[in-house]
Amino acid sequence: MTQIRFALAQIDTCVGDLDGNAAKVLDFARRARADGAQVAVFPEMTLTGYPIEDLALRRTFRAAAWDRANRLAADLAAEGLGGMYAIIGTVGTDHANAKPRNRLVVLHDGRVWAGYDKHFLPNYGVFDEFRIFSSGDRSVVLDVDGARLGVAICEDIWQDGGPVAELASRGIDCLVTINGSPYEEGKTHVRRELAAKRAKEVGAPLIYVNQVGGQDDLVFDGGSFVVDADGTLLAQSPMFMEDLAIWTLDTAAPAGGQPKGAIAPAPDPDEEVYTACVLGLKDYMAKNHFTGVTLGLSGGIDSALVAAMAADAVGGEHVWGISMPSMYSSDGSKDDAADLAANLGAHYDVQPIEPLFDAFQRQLELTGVAAENLQARIRGVIVMAYSNAKGLLAVATGNKSELACGYSTIYGDAVGGYAPIKDLLKTRVWQLARWRNKAAAAGVGIGGLKVVGNEAGDLGTPLKHGVMIPVSSIEKAPSAELRPGQKDSDSLPEYGLLDQVLAAYIEHAHGRADLLADGFDEATVDTVMRLVDRAEWKRRQYPLGPKVTALAFGRDRRLPVTDAFRE
Amino acid sequence: MTQIRFALAQIDTCVGDLDGNAAKVLDFARRARADGAQVAVFPEMTLTGYPIEDLALRRTFRAAAWDRANRLAADLAAEGLGGMYAIIGTVGTDHANAKPRNRLVVLHDGRVWAGYDKHFLPNYGVFDEFRIFSSGDRSVVLDVDGARLGVAICEDIWQDGGPVAELASRGIDCLVTINGSPYEEGKTHVRRELAAKRAKEVGAPLIYVNQVGGQDDLVFDGGSFVVDADGTLLAQSPMFMEDLAIWTLDTAAPAGGQPKGAIAPAPDPDEEVYTACVLGLKDYMAKNHFTGVTLGLSGGIDSALVAAMAADAVGGEHVWGISMPSMYSSDGSKDDAADLAANLGAHYDVQPIEPLFDAFQRQLELTGVAAENLQARIRGVIVMAYSNAKGLLAVATGNKSELACGYSTIYGDAVGGYAPIKDLLKTRVWQLARWRNKAAAAGVGIGGLKVVGNEAGDLGTPLKHGVMIPVSSIEKAPSAELRPGQKDSDSLPEYGLLDQVLAAYIEHAHGRADLLADGFDEATVDTVMRLVDRAEWKRRQYPLGPKVTALAFGRDRRLPVTDAFRE
Repeated sequence: MTQIRFALAQIDTCVGDLDGNAAKVLDFARRARADGAQVAVFPEMTLTGYPIEDLALRRTFRAAAWDRANRLAADLAAEGLGGMYAIIGTVGTDHANAKPRNRLVVLHDGRVWAGYDKHFLPNYGVFDEFRIFSSGDRSVVLDVDGARLGVAICEDIWQDGGPVAELASRGIDCLVTINGSPYEEGKTHVRRELAAKRAKEVGAPLIYVNQVGGQDDLVFDGGSFVVDADGTLLAQSPMFMEDLAIWTLDTAAPAGGQPKGAIAPAPDPDEEVYTACVLGLKDYMAKNHFTGVTLGLSGGIDSALVAAMAADAVGGEHVWGISMPSMYSSDGSKDDAADLAANLGAHYDVQPIEPLFDAFQRQLELTGVAAENLQARIRGVIVMAYSNAKGLLAVATGNKSELACGYSTIYGDAVGGYAPIKDLLKTRVWQLARWRNKAAAAGVGIGGLKVVGNEAGDLGTPLKHGVMIPVSSIEKAPSAELRPGQKDSDSLPEYGLLDQVLAAYIEHAHGRADLLADGFDEATVDTVMRLVDRAEWKRRQYPLGPKVTALAFGRDRRLPVTDAFRE
Repeated sequence: MTQIRFALAQIDTCVGDLDGNAAKVLDFARRARADGAQVAVFPEMTLTGYPIEDLALRRTFRAAAWDRANRLAADLAAEGLGGMYAIIGTVGTDHANAKPRNRLVVLHDGRVWAGYDKHFLPNYGVFDEFRIFSSGDRSVVLDVDGARLGVAICEDIWQDGGPVAELASRGIDCLVTINGSPYEEGKTHVRRELAAKRAKEVGAPLIYVNQVGGQDDLVFDGGSFVVDADGTLLAQSPMFMEDLAIWTLDTAAPAGGQPKGAIAPAPDPDEEVYTACVLGLKDYMAKNHFTGVTLGLSGGIDSALVAAMAADAVGGEHVWGISMPSMYSSDGSKDDAADLAANLGAHYDVQPIEPLFDAFQRQLELTGVAAENLQARIRGVIVMAYSNAKGLLAVATGNKSELACGYSTIYGDAVGGYAPIKDLLKTRVWQLARWRNKAAAAGVGIGGLKVVGNEAGDLGTPLKHGVMIPVSSIEKAPSAELRPGQKDSDSLPEYGLLDQVLAAYIEHAHGRADLLADGFDEATVDTVMRLVDRAEWKRRQYPLGPKVTALAFGRDRRLPVTDAFRE
């Protein structure tokens, strides 16, 4: 009987930051060793960050990564950690055709050992790996202190056949997988089912270590785990935070008989999505060297929720909210914005746009939509002025419903380097705002993130009207306030209905006939399709704003809808 | 002996516009038939446009394309054109895995005949086909009036092996290829060498029909041709314009003995690049339903060249130039802008930004770079106001040198849906401006495009100072005019040197050691690398502006440079 103690090192890497990523590996390796681990497992492409895209094609970058891996192995040995096996991901080179490889290596005894190259290179949705890498063509079994460990990288377990099928026939004691699997709602369950299937296939427990953190427009949720050959969950790391979990393999145990490790509880669905948004913003800022945020605070629900997320990400004292009232702004809106800023402990400035609007209009004399856009763009200039003057990240506050329907001004409210709620439909925005108010009241912490301004009073003052996000921001009829009495419902179907049609049309790619079969009435279907197609057309005309994606928290190329065809 | 008369139908399609593309096929088929053609060959993905990217993944779009192909076959037959063979490209479905295919079909006798599916799916540079399509796995030979015609699609001839190798062993009389090959400088020569190699391999002449026109951020240059098995050029269509060329195959002719067709002359290098820029802009406007352009006219060379391109694309009367002088603008700059607008027959408005700047500054009190950016952003608001009020496309005037070095303001001078010279280094901008002045003086027409304002006087008035683009715009020291006495050379190396380093670093992916070996001095190398890396970092922070690409006229994902590593 052999027992192997594993550390699941769920870390947050940064694309291109070889030194920073190596330092993190060293830090977690120390902790793993202190916990008695013999094997420390890190996520996919640990050293380079993930996804590195075309950066992998740069020869000098691959050379630097190779040097850094060797140096890291030496650093580990120099600290007396050379006896441990550190399984990390990095970029390799296929010298036969000078193409990059998505590679797993083992750092041991001061050297870089055994390389395994990813076989299945995903090339759909947010993934572009086949574009960049060439495929590995052999399976690898590591002999570690008498145990046979098979290895695989992410997509290798999502496809039938290939290295996992080979490992099944070779016989292993454990399948170790390193992953860079981005967050999607409901994916925890899908991953676990899949891992259980592969564990059964190889007849051994499967270790799944996932990357955590935001990288560009993706969020990786972590949630690493171990599943036994009979499907039993043996260990579960938390989502959305770095973590080092320990689990011990017993090579003599029967299927279903492996020892258990710690099981982190699952968050509730609203908490999960909210935390994904906060982590995405937080890491976007950290990896792009921003310490503070600025945004327009209109008193509406979108900017209110984004401000709360920003405060949870970096602390209210690093958030600059700007109220930019026009002649059409209601007093209630201004009060709501001020109350929220006070509740979050955020900076709050008022910059009326009327004098600026008047100055432009003396020269331009705009009317209609052009005059409405002018207001939005003056606000964009002000937000960017704060960004430049104070070194703050400007964030855009648009939600997925309004972006999908083109209810937004390019260079106006769309201004910003990051758009935290661009993947949330409007009804979800309301739902998360309500959840955030409950979370503030209950004083809960979320996935390692601190909720700002809870009732326990970390700001030392009670919440205005006893609630974090003002109730009127949530309950009033949405309005862009760009002309007198304007309401979103003048231009769009009610959001409850709109969001259902948008989900079916965009996320599930239902065509017109499908949408009618879904039970939506013809007039609504045609209105929504026309709005979405027209907005997509506009986005192609000015391809510079936040994109609407078919996937949540993902990236697409051309949004696969167009007004150029009809069923 | 059999003779087959081919029509090379070099057409400009539009992505997603099934009806428009079908109408164009019908029109060219009529003309081909009138010229006695038995076979009309169209470009890759004729019916759907190219590249269609993720749109191909939409089932409803594929169904619509399939229906449209059938209808087109019927339409051809109804007009008495059913006896001709029309070889077109479209999207198919691989029913085994429900994946799209890049397909060639033959319309004949009112039906859609023989499908050939592209085998090699390019997945590098501007191409993403492996992401979208599945590969065909068989070669196809068409028997047309007694001649054996092999077929292939674009990348199929760029790779060894596959369908062309199969056709070589099957024996054919002619290899017909349909292509969507984007423009790059020098590619004419590369394509012809390659085609000659494949013609030799199959022992038969090769017909190369290429798409022409701009599509999104790509430009297709046409330049279709026929090459004999011995490498002799048999026919050559012009670049950058639609064309119908006729060439006759003689199945009994020996290699090198095929009859010749018309050979269009090659443009000179400056003409070629200039025309690519004009065509890209012209088609971007047409396909996005814009009839006019607006831009800021500073009196500098970048906006001057863009204005000339815009006038050549759509006529000076559809160009709105806006002079937006500040307190730092020189009188010379304002005069140059006015002279150019007059020469182009463009609209010309003056919108001083000082009153607007003062209004913002009364509230914001900005200094330094924030105050400089404010000026650029006020201009962005004005340009977008013209865009909205008059339905014009705003074009950005930045060149590749300044974009690469981050010498540009996001939401300021970077505002625009299209950036016609973003792929031209500054020294090339000067060169093309000089060429354009010569072209105007000589009154030449370029690739089917009309040069506006030539000396022959199509505007009826002589050119100001006898030259189209004012000499001082070309010769004065470049300046952003955002602070007193500012010169580009305060922040950047001299452009002559800078452009050489940029070309090596970005386009040829030379690392630091390579650049030193190229003979650049260390201080310059480090300055340029720092500027480019920092600008790329900034672009990642605000991923919303024109991108700098390693390829000319192309698209990249992440620019493969970063400050995160050093050799």
